[in-house]
Amino acid sequence: MGRNYEHVVQYYETDAMQIVHHSNYIRWFEEARTWWLSEKVMSYHKLEDMGLMMPILSLNAKYQEMMRFGDVASIRLEVTKLSPVKMVISYQVYNKESEALCVTGDSVLGFLDKETGKPVSVKKSYPELYEALGLHIMKG
Amino acid sequence: MGRNYEHVVQYYETDAMQIVHHSNYIRWFEEARTWWLSEKVMSYHKLEDMGLMMPILSLNAKYQEMMRFGDVASIRLEVTKLSPVKMVISYQVYNKESEALCVTGDSVLGFLDKETGKPVSVKKSYPELYEALGLHIMKG
Amino acid sequence: MGRNYEHVVQYYETDAMQIVHHSNYIRWFEEARTWWLSEKVMSYHKLEDMGLMMPILSLNAKYQEMMRFGDVASIRLEVTKLSPVKMVISYQVYNKESEALCVTGDSVLGFLDKETGKPVSVKKSYPELYEALGLHIMKG
Amino acid sequence: MGRNYEHVVQYYETDAMQIVHHSNYIRWFEEARTWWLSEKVMSYHKLEDMGLMMPILSLNAKYQEMMRFGDVASIRLEVTKLSPVKMVISYQVYNKESEALCVTGDSVLGFLDKETGKPVSVKKSYPELYEALGLHIMKG
Repeated sequence: MGRNYEHVVQYYETDAMQIVHHSNYIRWFEEARTWWLSEKVMSYHKLEDMGLMMPILSLNAKYQEMMRFGDVASIRLEVTKLSPVKMVISYQVYNKESEALCVTGDSVLGFLDKETGKPVSVKKSYPELYEALGLHIMKG
Repeated sequence: MGRNYEHVVQYYETDAMQIVHHSNYIRWFEEARTWWLSEKVMSYHKLEDMGLMMPILSLNAKYQEMMRFGDVASIRLEVTKLSPVKMVISYQVYNKESEALCVTGDSVLGFLDKETGKPVSVKKSYPELYEALGLHIMKG
Repeated sequence: MGRNYEHVVQYYETDAMQIVHHSNYIRWFEEARTWWLSEKVMSYHKLEDMGLMMPILSLNAKYQEMMRFGDVASIRLEVTKLSPVKMVISYQVYNKESEALCVTGDSVLGFLDKETGKPVSVKKSYPELYEALGLHIMKG
Repeated sequence: MGRNYEHVVQYYETDAMQIVHHSNYIRWFEEARTWWLSEKVMSYHKLEDMGLMMPILSLNAKYQEMMRFGDVASIRLEVTKLSPVKMVISYQVYNKESEALCVTGDSVLGFLDKETGKPVSVKKSYPELYEALGLHIMKG
């Protein structure tokens, strides 16, 4: 999937254990996803103009190595499942310098109509987007 | 002004210096203000229904003593100025246990029409609210 | 487990969809856990004095209903698994007014020695804590 | 002072008014300052190794234009005052695309000894750092 998304750890993201607070990795998943959608698929604004919302339905994260202030997170993401009404994106957060795999996770995003709040079949209603997302599905 | 607003310091509000990150006191100012408006003046939802927004125009904060995880912040606030189109609210954040004055600050809030985004004279358009706010002006 | 932990939704916790940003529920899990440990088991400071850290090893969350500014979250938690070196805590976040179940989740916490960063058997080293936690295990 | 620091507005930084929550600009001041210290003066880690802390003593911010999700903030900063025991840094946050000046602010940072927590004369104890900072003082 080409180059990873990079995030420099900020002081305000650390906690009293002197490591990144675990909730911030969840925010970086979103950061990486926004960047990836915009760079590789289509901009969030265009998605919104299409009348599409993609809320998080569920997520999980596994914490393996701690990151600290000044570290650079290098985040790789993949579409691991795609259906007409939702998709799963998987994340791997590496410490850029040490190359340690620090945090992994997945989030399930639903495709909803912005006006009605109801699920939308992206396959039917936005075939171009469905195809674009399909190109990023991890090869088995 | 009666009892203060209380906020228990959370772990996610600390930083690697093992103290509360300075940006969080700004959030607590908002918390205290929301609570105070709702308890003493009128709820934010009612204000919104009136078509009124109160964005922050400017703020300042002075940091005197550090707070730590598990401390309880006791926040006192006062309307220190009120004009037809804006007001100044002042905050004093105490450490409830030690009674030390930790952080002080002010924020200037504008009264804007939600639809047009233009300043509104609360004195003219919402005299009842103007009067209610006036009751909380600090006595000299 | 007695009364739930309550959290009033703050404006700074909302996002441009006008709902609570999904990362904040992860922070509320921590808030509820801190409160519960302190009220029902032992204070975080006492745990730290014992030389014990309890970092998050993994977590998951499922988002069912959205919460908005001014809503009150009522959070119930339970120890769903306890072993000598880790425990699983489960959370249910309700909208206090509507009683809707909004978000559920689990987090796995490890027991680590603060000095060495290595796993500690709480059962062996802190039998009193192990017993106290055991009292809160969900009855089947 | 050469190129500005850039920050892409994240979704989790917006609030229910669909603009950036005002507390986040305070965090970006820190981001820009960290980047600037590291690029132009010396890394935060080196400062810490020298046994120096630079806590925020006070700050102010003035909000002129709102920023939204997907906007790019271009942040310029300057040392506007430097004394042996503290310095003032001023920030100007621009919307990179529209070039509108959105937020301005200042923060006062103290120089403290990490061990004792007492003020340190950087001029006396770290003349090299004092000189490096002096090079960035805004010319009148």
